[in-house]
Amino acid sequence: MSLDYWQNIQAKPISQVHQQTAEKRQLQLTKPPGSLGELESVAVQLSSLQYTEFPVAERVYISIFAADHGVAAQGVSAFPQEVTAQMILNFAEGGAAISVLAKQLAAQFDIVNLGTVTPVNHHNVVDAYIASGTQDFSQTKAMTEAQLLMALEAGAESVGRALSSKAHLYITGEMGIGNTTSAAAIFAALLSLNAKDVVGRGTGVTDAGLEIKKRVIDQALAFHGDALDSPLGILTCVGGFEIAAMTGAYLKAAEQGMPCVIDGFISSVAALLAYKIQPKAKDWFLFGHCSAEQHHQDILQHLNAAPLVNLSMRLGEASGAALAVNVIRAACQLHNTMATFGDAGVSNRVDNN
Amino acid sequence: MSLDYWQNIQAKPISQVHQQTAEKRQLQLTKPPGSLGELESVAVQLSSLQYTEFPVAERVYISIFAADHGVAAQGVSAFPQEVTAQMILNFAEGGAAISVLAKQLAAQFDIVNLGTVTPVNHHNVVDAYIASGTQDFSQTKAMTEAQLLMALEAGAESVGRALSSKAHLYITGEMGIGNTTSAAAIFAALLSLNAKDVVGRGTGVTDAGLEIKKRVIDQALAFHGDALDSPLGILTCVGGFEIAAMTGAYLKAAEQGMPCVIDGFISSVAALLAYKIQPKAKDWFLFGHCSAEQHHQDILQHLNAAPLVNLSMRLGEASGAALAVNVIRAACQLHNTMATFGDAGVSNRVDNN
Repeated sequence: MSLDYWQNIQAKPISQVHQQTAEKRQLQLTKPPGSLGELESVAVQLSSLQYTEFPVAERVYISIFAADHGVAAQGVSAFPQEVTAQMILNFAEGGAAISVLAKQLAAQFDIVNLGTVTPVNHHNVVDAYIASGTQDFSQTKAMTEAQLLMALEAGAESVGRALSSKAHLYITGEMGIGNTTSAAAIFAALLSLNAKDVVGRGTGVTDAGLEIKKRVIDQALAFHGDALDSPLGILTCVGGFEIAAMTGAYLKAAEQGMPCVIDGFISSVAALLAYKIQPKAKDWFLFGHCSAEQHHQDILQHLNAAPLVNLSMRLGEASGAALAVNVIRAACQLHNTMATFGDAGVSNRVDNN
Repeated sequence: MSLDYWQNIQAKPISQVHQQTAEKRQLQLTKPPGSLGELESVAVQLSSLQYTEFPVAERVYISIFAADHGVAAQGVSAFPQEVTAQMILNFAEGGAAISVLAKQLAAQFDIVNLGTVTPVNHHNVVDAYIASGTQDFSQTKAMTEAQLLMALEAGAESVGRALSSKAHLYITGEMGIGNTTSAAAIFAALLSLNAKDVVGRGTGVTDAGLEIKKRVIDQALAFHGDALDSPLGILTCVGGFEIAAMTGAYLKAAEQGMPCVIDGFISSVAALLAYKIQPKAKDWFLFGHCSAEQHHQDILQHLNAAPLVNLSMRLGEASGAALAVNVIRAACQLHNTMATFGDAGVSNRVDNN
């Protein structure tokens, strides 16, 4: 698929008919109106996305995109770069947080390696090699246009697998030492912010590491200048393969009508990229959680998003979105199987005051 | 059991050894330290309560306590009083929100009727009849001391059933038209607050209804005066049978070492009562959610509680606590089955800055 394809991608319209039917149903269930809070709005949203009165969240597809980042050479992470490849193996062997959560959800789970410095070879890992990590974006463009297209395409292919498995919800997460620095740079470039407004501690850098992150980002924003004039231009200059793959996945999911649960800071930056390319893509997003990563909340605010889970998590790898699946499942069960006032012979409100 | 028994009840000590072991384990799991946020603290807390390195939240026992309130005659609710009995039947028949959630959790679920204006007869309802609702506490004491003891005892018996079923977690919820007014009055009396600092809209009263609630509470606080000099005195004057039962349940659970997940505004008022009677009872509480009911947050703050779920719910009937069980289960699975850095051959942080 070409740059032109991605720049002009459309989102499937949502069903306003089913949205209204679902809203009416919520008012008939045996509870005070509004008393199930966001469980009500989630059920209504999913009804509108699935074109049904009875939304479902049973089959969940989770793709973890992993890649290395040239900018890690600047000392922006608390962890060494070999951890990216080591964690890919940990995902594949079932030892990582998202492996545990995916199993608990009985979700389909794959890991897509877009390119690590340390090669990975494991039968549970999808090999989508582009290069051994991006270039250091403080010195040069992170990736070529051809590489960007490969990464976007890898995202689209993941959505294709989710569609084939008839998933009700699609989730992506990421792994890549250095990727909060890339995500923060994208966030800054998209909204014309400075490094200090976008940078957080990621996996937990020290104060000194935080200063390096800020300096690297401000320098990169100045260095790339006018090349940061579009979402895809920004991805090429300061992006990461896994962030580009997530962006492609979100756009493809919106085009194909697959509801997405968005994870934390880095996933939300990819969602913001997708939104800036095609604003209607956002209709297909359910926001999973609010991360403890500084400034994640700002992205959520910009997207007018109400996250479902707020547990001070800051791990990435789709862990927050996976937690949110329990909330979405409960919302569906309540919406679909609670009794109505009529069914149960329960009196409705009197408002006799 | 006597008033003296309840006033002097002790809480089982928690295991500091297992707390420390669990904290150490969290640091060895393949994630940046702290990155699982409250999932880490929940797993550690449950380890200390269950005296184990590997906490479990599979078997859940949910009791709904229901009763009517004389104060409903003052027009403090948006719903008519017959709804209490109607909802008990709805719980029993599986149509209410908590029925749906309990089923989804495969939880054991019972409903305890402490006394409704409309009689209820259903094989799924535990009959713990005290009276056909409390007296109108704006005119007289809500209950006698003998009635208070019966309600506390009903709570203890529910914990006994949870212990017999070898539950890992115990949850109570409530149903009773008018009970946010009773709960707000208790909250005000316990912390020497005015009605305006404790009253919310409950099931959704109008502005006029809200003013009635405030007036009724301020009048009741003045009317009962010095009789509001102890938690059990407050329960007698302005409490409800179901709130007293929950208080008894939380105290008994703490005595017997049964971890409790606390629901919303009314449950938290019962938890606050238990805490004021025996501060160490709080060690046994996991706070399930933050309700949209105004001032619930103030109670949580007073208890220094970090709620697990924040979805703008305001339904009561244990629905928020039930949602939190998914979070607690995920926390346990992560704690128990994630790989350690050593197991997975993943490098730990470098902090090379």
